[in-house]
Parts: sequence; structure tokens; C-alpha cells
Amino acid sequence: MTANRLGGAELAARLRAQVAERAAARRAEGRPARLVIVTATDDEASAWYVRSIASAAAKVGIDCDVADLGTAATAGDLTTQLATLSADPGVDGVMLQTPLPRGVALAEVSGAIDPAKDVDGANPLSLGRLAAGQPAYAPATAAAVVALLDEYAVDLTGVRAVVVGRSAVVGKPLAHLLLDRDATVTMCHSRTRDLAAVTSTADVLVAAVGRTHLVTPEHVRPGAVVVDVGTNPTPDGGLAGDVDPAVSEVAAALTPVPGGVGPVTTALLLWHTVAGVTSAL
Amino acid sequence: MTANRLGGAELAARLRAQVAERAAARRAEGRPARLVIVTATDDEASAWYVRSIASAAAKVGIDCDVADLGTAATAGDLTTQLATLSADPGVDGVMLQTPLPRGVALAEVSGAIDPAKDVDGANPLSLGRLAAGQPAYAPATAAAVVALLDEYAVDLTGVRAVVVGRSAVVGKPLAHLLLDRDATVTMCHSRTRDLAAVTSTADVLVAAVGRTHLVTPEHVRPGAVVVDVGTNPTPDGGLAGDVDPAVSEVAAALTPVPGGVGPVTTALLLWHTVAGVTSAL
Repeated sequence: MTANRLGGAELAARLRAQVAERAAARRAEGRPARLVIVTATDDEASAWYVRSIASAAAKVGIDCDVADLGTAATAGDLTTQLATLSADPGVDGVMLQTPLPRGVALAEVSGAIDPAKDVDGANPLSLGRLAAGQPAYAPATAAAVVALLDEYAVDLTGVRAVVVGRSAVVGKPLAHLLLDRDATVTMCHSRTRDLAAVTSTADVLVAAVGRTHLVTPEHVRPGAVVVDVGTNPTPDGGLAGDVDPAVSEVAAALTPVPGGVGPVTTALLLWHTVAGVTSAL
Repeated sequence: MTANRLGGAELAARLRAQVAERAAARRAEGRPARLVIVTATDDEASAWYVRSIASAAAKVGIDCDVADLGTAATAGDLTTQLATLSADPGVDGVMLQTPLPRGVALAEVSGAIDPAKDVDGANPLSLGRLAAGQPAYAPATAAAVVALLDEYAVDLTGVRAVVVGRSAVVGKPLAHLLLDRDATVTMCHSRTRDLAAVTSTADVLVAAVGRTHLVTPEHVRPGAVVVDVGTNPTPDGGLAGDVDPAVSEVAAALTPVPGGVGPVTTALLLWHTVAGVTSAL
């Protein structure tokens, strides 16, 4: 048996078409949609990701600027920049790219992003509002996982969902999104004992740890739906997921890497930029 | 076999003694510690709880005022009051008592409480900061569960913790506190299928649903530690927990109701009022 491939390309294309429509309307009104990505790193993978977002934004008619503060930027520099962009009526979305300079914590500075423009859900207030059931942007990656499950009509009500990885930008907000959809949610992490025993209880298993092929067939219950959030660089310049491809022999369905969660994440980031927080996915 | 009784009275008394010491120091400095409880309900159980906090505060030397806005209070009235108290340098802690008037959501108005004075962790920003690993007050009840487990030296690292109940004031913040202590955390709720199968995997089981004796022996793995957050009124004017007393025959340890989480919750609310957010438990 080979698992169904839960590709994200079609959903991403459909989302981008919706974004393009809204962006064109905004441009016709003389107020083009604008996303600003703030960076302070010379990390090459990060630069590549930022360029890919900027290119995707341009294709759908969103103006995208990159504000590079350089690796010497302080928490104060970042906070000031994020607050200025938040106050700028010409800016719809503000995204803070990681990694940040040594000693600067994401949660420390992302509080300066207006939740109404926090299109990648980095401000702890966005996470808190999400958990409290109020309108807020979820981090695009977390939102993409749920959007992809919806795309393939995976019912979440009452199912056992297990999330491996407890980061504040993916695992934790994703747990709240899944709870909101009435899944019974378990959070696993590096200190979890007998990980395979826990992940094997999952109807829906999400791997979001950033370790190549951590999830193997023995972690997966036959018939489970597996979502791979990992994007780990390979020696040959490609991308590998957190899920071993052999899982395909056990799972009922599996998202590919690349081509699964990734393209939906980028499309949702753009969607957040034109959609406004009250209609956040 | 009968489970060990994890009473909260001793821990609560020790916490109150620490609070009294700090409150006395504050009074000697001419700036007594002050807690203000905002209410807008004529609910009798709520009024009883508010009186019990006010009385406990008085005993440890904290000035406690109750600002009763009446049942006709609007979201705007509440927001204004909470913002005024937050801006008042003479106020250390602001607590918003539920239930709120019909049509007013806690998360909607609690955003007006300064996180530095949000001693019961009601502001979604407090929850978000907690999840992001930043200094913030957890809701006193959620903090009390972890404090009580610590009191009895229950190791949380790597254990399987199951929380029944997903409220934004207990279940969700508690999940983050348990995750922070390296537990593998599962959130259950009313839509969970085969609840007993899930709760039976727990090394540490926390019931926080508000339904009398919902958790029965069949929900509990022999040897588990069970924490009962429920405080359900009984016909004779007493309190019943969410856990059936018969669980005592299966569990290794069980918190009583009353006398378990309750007194620790009140003591922590007072502790938060004198301790400052950076030293929140």
C-alpha cells in the first residue's frame, strides 16, 4: 500500500488566485496591498525564503518590501522598526523573519507587531487571542496544516491528533487550531518518553520538529493521516521532511516535502495580507 | 488501596505566610499592596467566592476592593474600569470576576488589564506570553495545579499528562504550564471520543470540566496521580469535584475537593498580587 499524496500545489494556486483578485481590487482603489518583511540575519536559507515570498507576492500583485536591519540590529532597533511599520497605514502585513541576532528572542520583539498586521502570527498576543477564541492570525505554517487537512476533507472532530514539536510558531498554535476543530490533541517533544507509543495513537499525526526523517513507520498507526511540516536542508541542496518516506507504506495519506505544507504556507501568508484579521483562516 | 490525599491546606498556609511578609513590608514602606476585584454579576456563588478572596486578602494584609459595576454593565464600562485600574499606580492586582453580563466575553474585555497586574491571567496576552515562554501570570487555578504537584514532588518531566477541559482560564493555560515542565500533554474535551481510553494513558490526570464526578475509576490508570479542579455546588450547599471519590481506590494520589486546588488558588492569587510578574510561579 502507498499513502495518498496530500499535495499542496492546487490549494496554494487557488489561494493565490483569490489573493490576486483582492490585490487587483486594492490596486484599482489606489491603495495597493503591501507586505513588509523585516530581517536581521545573513543566514542563506532565510534569505532564500524571503526572496521566495517576495517573488510570490509580486506575482499576485502585492507590493513586498524587505527591511534588512543587518546582523548588528538590537532588540530596540527591531521593536522600533516593527512599531513604525505597524503604525504605517500604507502597510497591511508585517512579518519578522528568523533567525534573529544573537540574544534577541522572537517573543520579546514581536509584541511590537500590531495583531491586525501580524500576518505570520508572531506576536504572543496573536497566539493568546487564538487560544481564547478571538480573531487573530495564526502563524501561516500552523494555518497551512489545517487548511491542507480541510482541502482533503480530513474530519478533525473527535479524532486523536498528535503534534510532535512544541515551538511557539508551529506546534503550540497548531495545537490550539486543532482543539478549535474539536480534535483531542497531544503535544509531544524531545522529552517525550516512548515517542512511538504516543504517536501511534494518532489518527492525524503532525511532525514539526525540524529533524530529518525523525518520524519512521514504527511511529505511525496504519491508516493514519500524516502531515510533514519539516523543511530540512539536504546535502545536495534539496529539502527533506521530518517524516521518513517509508511512512508512505503505513499511512493512509501523507503530505510531500517539498510540495505539501510549504506552498500553502506562502499562499496563506499572502492571503492574510489581503484578507484582514477578522477573516483569518 | 486508598490514594494518598494531596491536600492543599499546608501549601496554601505557607504561601499566605510569605504573602503576609511581603505585604507587611509594603505597608511599612507606606504603599500597601492592593487588589481590586471587578464584578458585574448577581450570581450568588460568585459573590461568595469574591467575599472569600477579600477575606483572605485582609488576613494577609492586602487591601482588597470590590468594584461592582452591576449586571447592566456593558463591555465598554468594563473595559474603561479595567483600564483605569491598570493605570492606577496604587493598584497591584486587577481581577475580573465571572460570570460577565450577557453578551460580554471575558477575552473581549480582559485585554484591558495590564499584563503586569493581571494576577488571574485573564488577558489573552498573558496566555500568549505564557505559551511563548515569557514572564506572565498564569490563571491562579492553573498555577495552583502545578504548585500542588510540586508540593508533593510529582515529577512531570516526560510523563503523560492528560487535561480534561479546554477552557481558556484553566485547561489551555495549564497545558502550557505542563508542557513547560516537559510533560507530554493531551487535551480532552466534550467532543473527545472514548474519553476513558485517553484518560487511562495518563500518569497525571487533571479534571477541569465543571461536571460533578465525571471522572470515574474506569477513566484512571492504576497508580496515576489525579488532580481535581472541579468545584460543583451540591444540593446541600457543599462542593463536589469533577472526580468520583471512588477513584481513590485506583489512583496513587488524589486531590480532595474541597481542600485541594481551591485554597492554593486563592493563596496564589494573593501571591501574584505581591510578587510581581517576573517572579510569577
